[in-house]
Amino acid sequence: MTTDVTSRAQEAYDALVAQGMKLDLTRGKPSAAQLDLSVAMLGLPGERYKAADGTDTRNYQGLQGLTELREIFAPVLQVPVEQLIAFGNSSLELMHDTLVHALLSPLPGAERRWVDEEKVVFLAPVPGYDRHFAVCDRLGIELLAVPMTSEGPDMDVVERLVAADPSIKGIWCVPKYANPDGVVYSDEVTRRLASMPTAASDFRIMWDNAYAVHHLTDEAVEVADVLALAAEAGHADRPFVFGSTSKITLAGAGVAFLGASPANVKWWLALTGKRTIGPDKVNHLRHALFFGDAAGVAAHMEKHRALIAPKFAALEKVLTENFADTPGVSWSTPKGGYFVTLTVPEGRATRIVQLAKEAGISLTPAGATHPGGDDPADSIIRLAPTFPPLDEVEKAMAGVAVCVHLALAEAS
Amino acid sequence: MTTDVTSRAQEAYDALVAQGMKLDLTRGKPSAAQLDLSVAMLGLPGERYKAADGTDTRNYQGLQGLTELREIFAPVLQVPVEQLIAFGNSSLELMHDTLVHALLSPLPGAERRWVDEEKVVFLAPVPGYDRHFAVCDRLGIELLAVPMTSEGPDMDVVERLVAADPSIKGIWCVPKYANPDGVVYSDEVTRRLASMPTAASDFRIMWDNAYAVHHLTDEAVEVADVLALAAEAGHADRPFVFGSTSKITLAGAGVAFLGASPANVKWWLALTGKRTIGPDKVNHLRHALFFGDAAGVAAHMEKHRALIAPKFAALEKVLTENFADTPGVSWSTPKGGYFVTLTVPEGRATRIVQLAKEAGISLTPAGATHPGGDDPADSIIRLAPTFPPLDEVEKAMAGVAVCVHLALAEAS
Repeated sequence: MTTDVTSRAQEAYDALVAQGMKLDLTRGKPSAAQLDLSVAMLGLPGERYKAADGTDTRNYQGLQGLTELREIFAPVLQVPVEQLIAFGNSSLELMHDTLVHALLSPLPGAERRWVDEEKVVFLAPVPGYDRHFAVCDRLGIELLAVPMTSEGPDMDVVERLVAADPSIKGIWCVPKYANPDGVVYSDEVTRRLASMPTAASDFRIMWDNAYAVHHLTDEAVEVADVLALAAEAGHADRPFVFGSTSKITLAGAGVAFLGASPANVKWWLALTGKRTIGPDKVNHLRHALFFGDAAGVAAHMEKHRALIAPKFAALEKVLTENFADTPGVSWSTPKGGYFVTLTVPEGRATRIVQLAKEAGISLTPAGATHPGGDDPADSIIRLAPTFPPLDEVEKAMAGVAVCVHLALAEAS
Repeated sequence: MTTDVTSRAQEAYDALVAQGMKLDLTRGKPSAAQLDLSVAMLGLPGERYKAADGTDTRNYQGLQGLTELREIFAPVLQVPVEQLIAFGNSSLELMHDTLVHALLSPLPGAERRWVDEEKVVFLAPVPGYDRHFAVCDRLGIELLAVPMTSEGPDMDVVERLVAADPSIKGIWCVPKYANPDGVVYSDEVTRRLASMPTAASDFRIMWDNAYAVHHLTDEAVEVADVLALAAEAGHADRPFVFGSTSKITLAGAGVAFLGASPANVKWWLALTGKRTIGPDKVNHLRHALFFGDAAGVAAHMEKHRALIAPKFAALEKVLTENFADTPGVSWSTPKGGYFVTLTVPEGRATRIVQLAKEAGISLTPAGATHPGGDDPADSIIRLAPTFPPLDEVEKAMAGVAVCVHLALAEAS
């Protein structure tokens, strides 16, 4: 590239910095307008507190969560009602606590507690979700990166690893509209995950179906039923399915779900019954009344889509206009979820994030999508357009494009 | 005792069984009438969702919990606002999770994680709370019973044990209106707990102030400020203070609190930040709006007292009428809390609970107040009169008296 190009890129960047922006594309948070969609919940359940079965939701007990709410989310999460647990306000909590339970009490099928293993390793398809990785780091579980393909984790790699090494105890999966690359697992990938031989007798799939109903197009993409496939393959206890209403109703005040085999559910409830008398069933009732049924959930998600699809479109537009013909620059065009993955030439991601930061645009740190915060190629940037208003997304993305141009020019 | 007495007791018992009762004095649950006191909460926060500092309570974040709610409960729990965490719906959860954190990450002052200790032992003042014991059992923490006195744990015993044995890492305390004997810790006991030398550098007091404002008399009993005393004694990190609104607002949908030293709070939040993005702040706001201030909490507790004090009085009346002059039978007359402890002659508690069960009256299993469910003297029965309506409490207690008479006659 010529010096001329570099100096034009530098000029554009200087102009960007001069604007003194303060914009944020870091986290997958719903916007205030999205939260407004659920404002009616703030007055619920009103005077009512009895569940359909007569349970006084105000009192103690009900460890598995309110039946009518589990009935609504059972089809959404592809889990039979009796195998679905409705719990607190965070699915991350459920994932963390499930691993804590496995560390301190043998899982169904386990020979021992995981703290008594020499080491415990989880496979981390990359790019992936930094909070999954942080849970493992915190609990002393090692992460081993495996590559993603356009259909899910590279199953040739996964199958080879799990067949050989009994210390590999699990894999993180976001099967639909994956964080951050928007990938949807193919039925074949799901089938292979559910049926592959594993050296560990207590191998688990952490199936974080965080975006089950979070479509961005007319197509309500479906994934295969991992619990059913695992049971058919003789590995009923392999999947733990997670989901929540955090990006459906209120991000901090939603309801999280855990689904699994009868043996896993029994194990989980027995341990959790020592920890608490039960979850907040009033919030369960609040949600059940708000939705009515699974169709109510789908209808509600259409309203979210109307608010956030234009933000993804704005992002796509800026990227296409700027980088359609730029070698080494590509991006995901997800059909749902909360993120776009921007791939830049090797070694440029950190620089772009730094340039953006200095121009007042916060991006997720480069490397966050990889275990240990280390993307060996330094080429992946996660963009999260949902939280800021549309005009700020447009401004921020125009700014990001300027940063990418300069970072590429610097390296040329 | 004469055969005549025995046969009269048997006749009375047979008549009791013939009534076919189905009554329950097992658990410390609020009654429906108590829950009705907080029915206005079910419509809160209404349209409002902004906290005093502008936080949108509907969205993610705010790991320490809403400031205005912490401000209300800071004086209630004797914890400075900045050292108080407002969290989920269960203080038992907070206790469990704090011990999990200590098992998996070194506490401030610890040499290693507790899972890496040869063994970890907690002192359990007896009679005590079965759910405390169950948390330890579940986590592989051994329990060592120490006797209660009328002023709290027998501190001569406690001091001797903790000074000698570094594997003793903690003690369970319910300092006010203790479960189940209603004991209030004297200032001297609290001072000794806060200042005693311990062989373990990471010794902790699990200060479960579950009944901080749950008075049954005009006297609002106070206990000493354990955090302040510990800090003065150079052991700032020793106490973890717990509390909740479970028996103030809605038993299943309240807010739980954790208070501790700045170092402990920092440690706890850092670990918890890997587990969740934050607690349900809408429920925090709901509670803050409902109470207004600490005086609002006290006023609300007066209404609870009006409902439950008569139930304790009914229980006391039956016991006095039947056993005022019976050798070996005594009971607590708590000034607050949720329980009465009935002490019967050695070896009779299990028999009484069994007789009551066969007459349709559920009592907490004898021994539940002791580690491993084993009361060596088999003489302690925990009575919980809050949940049933007053007339049922009266009937159930009359029935219990019949069972005690028969069990004593059988042993005479």
